[in-house]
Amino acid sequence: MTNQAAAQRVSVIGLGAMGTALAKALLAGGHEVTVWNRTPARAEALVADGARVATSSAEALTAADLLIVCVLDDAAVREHLEPVAARLRGRTVVNLTTTTPEQARSSGRWARAAGVELIDGGIMAIPDMIGGPGAFVLYSGAGAAFARYRSVLELFGAAEFVGEDLGAAAMYDVSILGGMYAMFAAFHQGGAMVRTTGGTAARLAELMTPFLQAMATTLTAQAPGIDTPAEYVQPQSDEFTAAAIDLIDKSAAESGNPTELYGGLRRTLVGR
Amino acid sequence: MTNQAAAQRVSVIGLGAMGTALAKALLAGGHEVTVWNRTPARAEALVADGARVATSSAEALTAADLLIVCVLDDAAVREHLEPVAARLRGRTVVNLTTTTPEQARSSGRWARAAGVELIDGGIMAIPDMIGGPGAFVLYSGAGAAFARYRSVLELFGAAEFVGEDLGAAAMYDVSILGGMYAMFAAFHQGGAMVRTTGGTAARLAELMTPFLQAMATTLTAQAPGIDTPAEYVQPQSDEFTAAAIDLIDKSAAESGNPTELYGGLRRTLVGR
Ligand SMILES: NC(=O)c1ccc[n+]([C@@H]2O[C@H](COP(=O)([O-])OP(=O)(O)OC[C@H]3O[C@@H](n4cnc5c(N)ncnc54)[C@H](OP(=O)(O)O)[C@@H]3O)[C@@H](O)[C@H]2O)c1
Ligand SMILES: NC(=O)c1ccc[n+]([C@@H]2O[C@H](COP(=O)([O-])OP(=O)(O)OC[C@H]3O[C@@H](n4cnc5c(N)ncnc54)[C@H](OP(=O)(O)O)[C@@H]3O)[C@@H](O)[C@H]2O)c1
Repeated sequence: MTNQAAAQRVSVIGLGAMGTALAKALLAGGHEVTVWNRTPARAEALVADGARVATSSAEALTAADLLIVCVLDDAAVREHLEPVAARLRGRTVVNLTTTTPEQARSSGRWARAAGVELIDGGIMAIPDMIGGPGAFVLYSGAGAAFARYRSVLELFGAAEFVGEDLGAAAMYDVSILGGMYAMFAAFHQGGAMVRTTGGTAARLAELMTPFLQAMATTLTAQAPGIDTPAEYVQPQSDEFTAAAIDLIDKSAAESGNPTELYGGLRRTLVGR
Repeated sequence: MTNQAAAQRVSVIGLGAMGTALAKALLAGGHEVTVWNRTPARAEALVADGARVATSSAEALTAADLLIVCVLDDAAVREHLEPVAARLRGRTVVNLTTTTPEQARSSGRWARAAGVELIDGGIMAIPDMIGGPGAFVLYSGAGAAFARYRSVLELFGAAEFVGEDLGAAAMYDVSILGGMYAMFAAFHQGGAMVRTTGGTAARLAELMTPFLQAMATTLTAQAPGIDTPAEYVQPQSDEFTAAAIDLIDKSAAESGNPTELYGGLRRTLVGR
């Protein structure tokens, strides 16, 4: 177990908007932070906060025990990690770059071969929220390493470990974002619809926000329908759900609005 | 203006789960309530609570000044109201039966011809919630009649008037429910996805509920994008949104899950 008060040697690779926020949180937490960014100017700005600047990604990656990677995408992660993998043995890499679950699992292959403890993460916050209330980060992969570094990772926001499968954090991440975009899409569709009856999206938001907040609390009760469907009794029949969505669909069509969104919801919920 | 303390003569047509809850709320509020239901047994149960039972819908409809209609669908509304329309002159009809916006507007035509003040309503609650916190009902149509009877209608839950267009309440109703089903569909899709990485829908619910509750508060800030698009600066470019949804789509596809839901979200939000 880590002594929570002990300063750790941590490197941060990638100082875009998010990487910079992560590095600042680590510095504020009193850790020894080495940073590297492809465009060096962005690294210099952190020197005043106490960061040490590495002159190459390889130098940064071998300067610490805990490596935080937050670059654009999976290709950029591979570009910098795979060539130096053999020199990272025994270190812990936390990849906070957004990837698909398969990309995260695929990184696990070289990490395992190289003796690197790999954790994949999905950040559920924008850079301004890092270290503040409401921010949380999903982690999956090397559970023992997560436990060891948990107090460091908690500097970013609540740390939620979702499983040993390296793809799990990315899958929870995209599933949660899918819920957000679903809500946004329905709001945009509904806003257009209420305008055809003299209403406004502003008024719709006022009414919809508290309703959706209340309905979001029912997800836990719906979970057994997915986790243990054989034992689950639906509170609402598929026929009822299909009829309710058809009425929404019909209301959209009547007002000259696209109905594609609602058709997709019905097929997702009742399979037809 | 109505004296809030004065008992009103109110009739309730249709005593299914919802109509019964509405009648009980009116009785509890001290009003003189006449009820009618196609299957008489359901009306008898309210006598103990003080209701007067009419022997025909026509009798119930002419027994009061304020008529609450809550039957199965638009066809059932027409079946009972249109034949007696001429005898309802000067009365206020509040139709709480779920209909499409066009059906609500179409009822406005006979109501206008007959000198009936028609209000269409959309109940955002289940029967158990009527009269309790969290229940709200959307109303549109005859604004003066709404103002006159507002204190009676508030016995059901918060009373939200959304415009003089008779179709407005139904359109807000279906738009809000569309948001709920969108959230539910994304949860069902995401639950299936996280299970392919060893996760559970229960854990997803735990993480997704507070995130969606927080994101629901951003709808008001997004509303000008729909109400006054020419003046609105998007906080996130269409390219960013499209790429984010494509990543969700790709994660679903990789795990053998359908991607139709996400494609629909992308087309709704960024038009392609
Ligand atoms: N911003 C958010 O709200 C947010 C939220 C959750 C997750 N994320 C994820 O966090 C990651 C970083 O996002 P960001 O907002 O910080 O993006 P950003 O501001 O655009 O920064 C991108 C970073 O990636 C670096 N980069 C790109 N290609 C590279 C390469 N081939 N080699 C080395 N470095 C490379 C850039 O270096 P240069 O400075 O040299 O261009 C820069 O440091 C992304 O995966 C993003 O999805 C962001
Ligand atoms: N329950 C909810 O959570 C909820 C929420 C929001 C809105 N609503 C809306 O409220 C309305 C009533 O719903 P409910 O839950 O009370 O349904 P319900 O329990 O199934 O009751 C349906 C009612 O409609 C009557 N009815 C059906 N066809 C009729 C006809 N041709 N003539 C006269 N009466 C007829 C039934 O009479 P019999 O008893 O003779 O069959 C019964 O009173 C629906 O439009 C529904 O969409 C319900």
